[in-house]
Amino acid sequence: MSLFRNLIQLSTSKSKPLLQNPNFLFTSLSHFTTDTPTRYAGLEPTKGDEKPRVVVLGSGWAGCRLMKGIDTDLYDVVCVSPRNHMVFTPLLASTCVGTLEFRSVAEPIGRIQPAISKAPGSYFFLANCTSLDAEKQMVHCETVTDGLDTVDPWRFKISYDKLVIALGAEASTFGIRGVKEHAIFLREVRHAQEIRRKLLLNLMLSDMPGLSEEEKSRLLHCVVVGGGPTGVEFSGELSDFILKDVRQTYAHVKDYIHVTLIEANEILSSFDDSLRHYATKQLTKSGVHLVRGIVKDVKPQKLILTDGTEVPYGLLVWSTGVGPSSFVKSLELSKSPGGRIGIDEWLRVPSMPDVFAIGDCSGFLESTGKPVLPALAQVAERQGKYLANLLNKIGKDGGGRRNSGGEVELGDPFVYRHLGSMATIGRYKALVDLRQSKEAKGLALKGFASWFIWRSAYLTRVISWRNRLDARLQACYRTAVSQVLEKPPFMWEEGIE
Amino acid sequence: MSLFRNLIQLSTSKSKPLLQNPNFLFTSLSHFTTDTPTRYAGLEPTKGDEKPRVVVLGSGWAGCRLMKGIDTDLYDVVCVSPRNHMVFTPLLASTCVGTLEFRSVAEPIGRIQPAISKAPGSYFFLANCTSLDAEKQMVHCETVTDGLDTVDPWRFKISYDKLVIALGAEASTFGIRGVKEHAIFLREVRHAQEIRRKLLLNLMLSDMPGLSEEEKSRLLHCVVVGGGPTGVEFSGELSDFILKDVRQTYAHVKDYIHVTLIEANEILSSFDDSLRHYATKQLTKSGVHLVRGIVKDVKPQKLILTDGTEVPYGLLVWSTGVGPSSFVKSLELSKSPGGRIGIDEWLRVPSMPDVFAIGDCSGFLESTGKPVLPALAQVAERQGKYLANLLNKIGKDGGGRRNSGGEVELGDPFVYRHLGSMATIGRYKALVDLRQSKEAKGLALKGFASWFIWRSAYLTRVISWRNRLDARLQACYRTAVSQVLEKPPFMWEEGIE
Repeated sequence: MSLFRNLIQLSTSKSKPLLQNPNFLFTSLSHFTTDTPTRYAGLEPTKGDEKPRVVVLGSGWAGCRLMKGIDTDLYDVVCVSPRNHMVFTPLLASTCVGTLEFRSVAEPIGRIQPAISKAPGSYFFLANCTSLDAEKQMVHCETVTDGLDTVDPWRFKISYDKLVIALGAEASTFGIRGVKEHAIFLREVRHAQEIRRKLLLNLMLSDMPGLSEEEKSRLLHCVVVGGGPTGVEFSGELSDFILKDVRQTYAHVKDYIHVTLIEANEILSSFDDSLRHYATKQLTKSGVHLVRGIVKDVKPQKLILTDGTEVPYGLLVWSTGVGPSSFVKSLELSKSPGGRIGIDEWLRVPSMPDVFAIGDCSGFLESTGKPVLPALAQVAERQGKYLANLLNKIGKDGGGRRNSGGEVELGDPFVYRHLGSMATIGRYKALVDLRQSKEAKGLALKGFASWFIWRSAYLTRVISWRNRLDARLQACYRTAVSQVLEKPPFMWEEGIE
Repeated sequence: MSLFRNLIQLSTSKSKPLLQNPNFLFTSLSHFTTDTPTRYAGLEPTKGDEKPRVVVLGSGWAGCRLMKGIDTDLYDVVCVSPRNHMVFTPLLASTCVGTLEFRSVAEPIGRIQPAISKAPGSYFFLANCTSLDAEKQMVHCETVTDGLDTVDPWRFKISYDKLVIALGAEASTFGIRGVKEHAIFLREVRHAQEIRRKLLLNLMLSDMPGLSEEEKSRLLHCVVVGGGPTGVEFSGELSDFILKDVRQTYAHVKDYIHVTLIEANEILSSFDDSLRHYATKQLTKSGVHLVRGIVKDVKPQKLILTDGTEVPYGLLVWSTGVGPSSFVKSLELSKSPGGRIGIDEWLRVPSMPDVFAIGDCSGFLESTGKPVLPALAQVAERQGKYLANLLNKIGKDGGGRRNSGGEVELGDPFVYRHLGSMATIGRYKALVDLRQSKEAKGLALKGFASWFIWRSAYLTRVISWRNRLDARLQACYRTAVSQVLEKPPFMWEEGIE
């Protein structure tokens, strides 16, 4: 294997030449100035001999699609995010039970936009943006050290020529007590790992000698709150996993594990009725217990519904939609309905020159007369693509520098066309709703065919990013990996996959 | 991909029938008795209508090889270990920098011995053995909950017909202050993940604007203490990783990252002289800074040598050999030189009937006139294999039940023949020493050829366990994975791989 690998490395290394510019390091260091004794430094405003700097906050669908599309001959790109990769969120549910590997649903930013790891003026900073100074056109940041003693949190500031806010949204708990402490969300790879780790731990603990029947059942009761696509997808994957793997690998406890999905209204409310009924039927058939109820309180080992029902759980996954993040709340600017950053048709923040906002953190201002778009990957990605083109146009027309884009003709505003909703419900079943809106007429698929469309759609995308692999190897890789994943090895260290 | 996968699942699921016995669960639960109100339960002594029970403590090379070889028609197998998989330790160094995936160097116990996850009387318990009662022939255990609130640590006891202690050894710190707190060992997958995570974090932090040159250099100074195979292998992999990936993916900081290997005496002291010199040359050539010194004290960001030299580090890996674990120390029985569990030529613990010890935790008693064997994977594996056969023989001859093996003819004692030492030093270079002992004459290989032998030897073994994959798919998998790993995607969540 390694012989193969190394031979190929030797051959491909030619096609990936090391950076030619020998003094790029000096160039980049020349940006840095420690301007106060309080170790507070940063990137100064760009000078005439440098490219204008686009600062991107966030590395989700919107931010990454933008960075991918930006012309690095026109701009230097600086990304600030607590996550150095983007996550293919629609596939996250599958990783919890090993249907997919964690690595195959995430992509490092350095691969999405190589300039970030190579170009002299482009950087990725593992940090959070703490505040925005629209007047001085700079953002204040603080490194993420994740509690490691490596360094103290490090503060710095970055001047921007153009700023793109793509910070996404936060999972909403509706102020219900105990959710943050005891429930697991499903938005990051580490969440999927935590779910997997806990599921595995509970499977093993429930097999301990002398454990009471009640405790066994509690440990192996997986409760999902929220009947949106994520909740439904996860429930489906989970029951799938139970039907297939648990019955074989954890045969001792197979009769104790159950999945319950709690939703206040209808599951998949945004989908066509017939699809919704189909999903309900399929989930029930595959053993998911659907409960209509509203959670009132969450305790360490049980949750309580408004009607007083107590639901003991071993694993609690929370996916009841998203709301604006605390950073977005803190921004003093006019918001859209729902408290997102208000933007115009060109995705600009009107009150702040050279500032744009895309993805779940942004919404059209009421003044635009347009509705706030749903918090969907496809919206975020389309906005990222649109804005990349817009910024490239501005750059080409000489408006890349701060306060210089005023007279540039922006062209067509952003228009969103809904290409349909997709959700999977496990066991090769899925829903594809290709209508423009809930009311409109259009194609609605269900069952295996649509599942295959769904999975292919995303997997093709996942792999399309991996342009290192040529088509032949992709096929080989996908076949092989799928073989290996047919029965994923469950390990103790957060379920290595 | 998934279409492939599922079709294959459908086809293979036939070849993996679900458990036939419908009431095995009852059968197994009938073992359980909560004998006190203090929730203290366990597995009772086996009855006449049940198979004798072999209890295995540990899931390393020795324990897993034993479980793989044991005849489950003769015995029920119960494994107690804080780790539900075995680690191919010699390949661990490669996973830290993504040369190999974590999953490809670990194997779940349920796959090594399927009976454990299916057979009514066989179990895996994620727990530590806290004490051994040789008189009552039972072990006392406590579950590993890893600080999760899932359940309180759960105590139980297991009666054994035969007990095999295969608990391995602990990394030795020679009582040097700060080692446990600040250094990372390299013995478990989670260690490799921690190393990878810290390496990645430091790489990103060192790129922060305004960081001083000193801090940059410290963050990116990787220090390895201990010049045995593990230390040398890790240093080699690391410098390899720097030469290849860092220069491209972390170009901004490539000139700041360095590797230092600290060893009190000679590196690879157990190897042939010419091989040792070759290794030294290769390591130096690939940029590893070799330092002869003795560590006196370890502080959070620097270590101090006995000669007073201060060595700042961003990552500290400790691999200075192993010693007996606290559990082994606590056992009141006659020890071998070096404080291991004393065993006779048939790997029995003389003072305790039906108790055996194998692997790093055991050593021949002085009375046997045999030397204590080195703490090597090949010793542990050979002992596991030998003992599996011995126990099967005893079982066939009707000596499986407790206190009934007395009159069984044991046959030949265990004899160890050294098949040679292997170590890799990165960049397709390795050492293979095929002499019986340090003094003896014999074959000594170095360079690419031996590297290929080394890697193949282990990878073949790794993959040989994955009997789910047929040969064609193995090749396909290995090629594909090697492609993907050629440039591993480094992620923030402990470097998903």
